[in-house]
Amino acid sequence: MTTASPASGYVPQEGTRSARSRKAIVEAATETFLRKGYPGTSMDEIAGSASVSKQTVYKHFADKETLFTHVITAMLAETDQQNQAAVQTLGDTDDPARGLQELARRFLASIRAPRVLQLRRLVIAEAERFPELGRAYWESGFERGITTLAEGFRRLTERGLLTTADPVVAAHHFAGLVLWIPMNRAMFCGDQDAITASELDHLAESAAAAFLAAYTDR
Amino acid sequence: MTTASPASGYVPQEGTRSARSRKAIVEAATETFLRKGYPGTSMDEIAGSASVSKQTVYKHFADKETLFTHVITAMLAETDQQNQAAVQTLGDTDDPARGLQELARRFLASIRAPRVLQLRRLVIAEAERFPELGRAYWESGFERGITTLAEGFRRLTERGLLTTADPVVAAHHFAGLVLWIPMNRAMFCGDQDAITASELDHLAESAAAAFLAAYTDR
Repeated sequence: MTTASPASGYVPQEGTRSARSRKAIVEAATETFLRKGYPGTSMDEIAGSASVSKQTVYKHFADKETLFTHVITAMLAETDQQNQAAVQTLGDTDDPARGLQELARRFLASIRAPRVLQLRRLVIAEAERFPELGRAYWESGFERGITTLAEGFRRLTERGLLTTADPVVAAHHFAGLVLWIPMNRAMFCGDQDAITASELDHLAESAAAAFLAAYTDR
Repeated sequence: MTTASPASGYVPQEGTRSARSRKAIVEAATETFLRKGYPGTSMDEIAGSASVSKQTVYKHFADKETLFTHVITAMLAETDQQNQAAVQTLGDTDDPARGLQELARRFLASIRAPRVLQLRRLVIAEAERFPELGRAYWESGFERGITTLAEGFRRLTERGLLTTADPVVAAHHFAGLVLWIPMNRAMFCGDQDAITASELDHLAESAAAAFLAAYTDR
């Protein structure tokens, strides 16, 4: 039994040999794209790393771009699940200052993962050549993340613990306060420029404090 | 008469034929790097566009990387001059809300220039291969920009119009509030995804309002 999916060929039933091949292809593709970039990666190499024939790769993914898009959206779906869990915790908190600090720390930890940084750099590098990829990243990554975060702020606002006239704008602001500097630093200076744990704590605390001052009633 | 500069070969006296060659090389290099990326650009092509011999190019710039670094730092120096002027105006204002909105609008206009976006994408794409370039961009672009902005906030704090215990952290926060979303949108979705003038106004106003709420005494 298979289900059709226009974006990524056929999706085989879990546990079958075909499903195992597909999983191996996606893992090999993720690793190779992140390491070698989009132009530096060939379907031949992915087939080799996954120990399947090139024909099998094409059975699952129509072309390199389709496979790349699948890799990106799968990685973003993973991040989204983490965000959902973190924001759920925030919405339930009785101590917004502490909850915002904790969320800021989680965001900082998750964006600094080497895979996340490599993916981001890769998508930016290819955004002019493959505008659909950049767009997919924006919609499945950024916009979805902001929507999730806005939901948490909406709940805190309903519970009287924050004052956000527009929770979506507030979500933009929180992300900017927390992430602007460390994300740019990671993009331009790479991992070798390690930010210390105490610097990360300071970033999380100062961003949470500024946000709280901006978004609570005086 | 020439002056030595280890980073960019010899710098000829203004108005000489050599100075005109150098200017033509830098202009051709800027245009070609931005359009074709670093790996896609050759010194041959730059010499051709500048109508000089390859030997002349190498007389001014020891290698492609030196020329690329020069292009980047020259573009960043231009941005820095604009920032200095904008922040001077902010420090002199008697109406911080209006001054911050105006500064946010200027920042938004300057980061959305196609050349600035292309440069940024280019440096991010090459940051792993040429860490010194990413580092140069970070120091001459980001850190210098933050230092300039912090100076403006320091003056407003001394004049009693803002309350910033740490003007550098405040500068990080202002940049993040204003730029996080539009910069990422530009990076991933490109220019074709035009943000309207009224959306930009709204971004500038909401960022300035959040900053002011966070950084004025209650």
